[in-house]
Amino acid sequence: MPIIAVDAMGGDHAPEEIVRGVAEVSLETDIDCLLVGHEGRIQAVLEEVPYNPERIAVLHARDAVPMDEDAHEAMRTRKDSSLMVAVQAVAGGRADAVVSAGNTGAAVLAASRWFSLLPGIRRAALACVHPRMTEYPGQDPLALLLDVGATVHCEADELVYFALMGSAYARRISKLPNPRVGLLNLGVEETKGGPTLVEVHRRLRGQPMIDFVGNVEGNDLVRGRADVIVCEGYVGNVALKLLEGVSEVLVDVAQAAAERKLVWRVGLRLLSRGIERVSALTDFSRYGGAPILGFDKLFIKCHGRSRARAVANAVKVAAKAVRDRVPEEIVDAVGGLR
Amino acid sequence: MPIIAVDAMGGDHAPEEIVRGVAEVSLETDIDCLLVGHEGRIQAVLEEVPYNPERIAVLHARDAVPMDEDAHEAMRTRKDSSLMVAVQAVAGGRADAVVSAGNTGAAVLAASRWFSLLPGIRRAALACVHPRMTEYPGQDPLALLLDVGATVHCEADELVYFALMGSAYARRISKLPNPRVGLLNLGVEETKGGPTLVEVHRRLRGQPMIDFVGNVEGNDLVRGRADVIVCEGYVGNVALKLLEGVSEVLVDVAQAAAERKLVWRVGLRLLSRGIERVSALTDFSRYGGAPILGFDKLFIKCHGRSRARAVANAVKVAAKAVRDRVPEEIVDAVGGLR
Repeated sequence: MPIIAVDAMGGDHAPEEIVRGVAEVSLETDIDCLLVGHEGRIQAVLEEVPYNPERIAVLHARDAVPMDEDAHEAMRTRKDSSLMVAVQAVAGGRADAVVSAGNTGAAVLAASRWFSLLPGIRRAALACVHPRMTEYPGQDPLALLLDVGATVHCEADELVYFALMGSAYARRISKLPNPRVGLLNLGVEETKGGPTLVEVHRRLRGQPMIDFVGNVEGNDLVRGRADVIVCEGYVGNVALKLLEGVSEVLVDVAQAAAERKLVWRVGLRLLSRGIERVSALTDFSRYGGAPILGFDKLFIKCHGRSRARAVANAVKVAAKAVRDRVPEEIVDAVGGLR
Repeated sequence: MPIIAVDAMGGDHAPEEIVRGVAEVSLETDIDCLLVGHEGRIQAVLEEVPYNPERIAVLHARDAVPMDEDAHEAMRTRKDSSLMVAVQAVAGGRADAVVSAGNTGAAVLAASRWFSLLPGIRRAALACVHPRMTEYPGQDPLALLLDVGATVHCEADELVYFALMGSAYARRISKLPNPRVGLLNLGVEETKGGPTLVEVHRRLRGQPMIDFVGNVEGNDLVRGRADVIVCEGYVGNVALKLLEGVSEVLVDVAQAAAERKLVWRVGLRLLSRGIERVSALTDFSRYGGAPILGFDKLFIKCHGRSRARAVANAVKVAAKAVRDRVPEEIVDAVGGLR
């Protein structure tokens, strides 16, 4: 069973919700967790919840990276933070993967510093998992979008490798034998998007190991043909945050409805399924987390607003990714590249 | 009063809804319209609706650009299309601005061929107008996003000019004396987004004529501080289509609700305002259109799905932009650039 290092101090609801999530995992699974952070505060939370002490160890870190701190500044000044200590614990072999709901930029930089890029990979990518309307029976309701912020602009080579990595991850984690890969572009025609995207399109079309469905557009993030969508970080990050912005407005609407009197609610049931469908499309908080791909070690990044359930799901995803040997799958895919 | 050349054959509901929109305008305003397209089909629609014949002239064009045709192909083979004839009518001085709900790529290329870039402007930008949640009383519920597809990637210079042009347009059309301009980026910090965006940030901050609010993120498109949001075409196009995709899902939900029995509807009223708020956020079809900025002549591009009301609104926006001398406002802004 893998050991997962969990950054107990990262996230809007840290350490309470992070520790509670790990406590849940300790009762539900055989996964071992290494809770990294302020020992006293971690123990204080553990005293309040049921958990299996055989599955949880605590590694003290006296500092923490604030959520809104500049990532480079954090790298310079927060060597003893829970995030950095957790990443080093994995780099040093004490644990097998990191889970953190903390500062995303610092997470990417810390992984870059202490993990190694896989052979052939030039840049890592930060993925996000987003729900979408399914288009055919049996389609996974979750899709993977990458990169969403580890890069700004990318060269063709890098985007091709993002497609390989995303496809390998989806093959292992979603158990889709042939994930459909799309290239996020301004239009579906292969001539769209300038020289880089045209070249990526051409190269992906020629890869027998990738089920390339061609260019996809912004609306395909909502209900689309592709299980894995590849783009540079600038556009992926804007798309991700735009979906989050829509989600927040929908949550406002749903809450306003829930607060009304019982007499109204009968009629509301009608709309509730519809609202849920839309809301599920954009609600990142329910899902465990998404990987930073390209390194020899795994890092599952949770949303900053993650609650215990999301953290527990992320730990399970991390354990599954370790057991299913995602980095090795990526290395194999790179080896088979034409 | 300006004369507006309207591409009668462009759009999903052309020519019926386009001609009906122009007929509405002829009864409501003093704007003169030149309906460009198949004369027989235009007359057939006009015979069915009330209109003021003193305000409408028809210019025959025997061809039309299909909505999904490759734009370069259209430029080669559709010289006699309603779109090209309308643009040439404006270039030749027979009308003052173009309105089209047709093929967007062909619209941008046609404007590029027959209009001239304003002095100092290197590239035109396609804007879109999108509704958003307002953040303070009196804030315009519409915001302008540019570029959404006339470019793919941009240099710093180009993005600075997009900010100038968008700001000038909003100043004239929205009557905001000082539109707030934001730069769409991966984070709010001025160090974000790579060298180009960092330089744009620095240069916009130093422009006294622009009320620059700094970097904005994807969620700021939904409820944000900026009235004008600037980005390169790749990211703007993806964001626009993503918003449209969310809108379509919401329309499905609202329609499913509307089809239910009366007894349910009482309860539904409760949610209807909330749904409307969300739906208005993403419903482009209600709004007139958005400009292609940077040329000596104006082009207002409507959404392909525009109905008569949207077309009528676009014609009014075009007339206003001509009367309020938007191109001259842009030239003045460029002249004042530091």
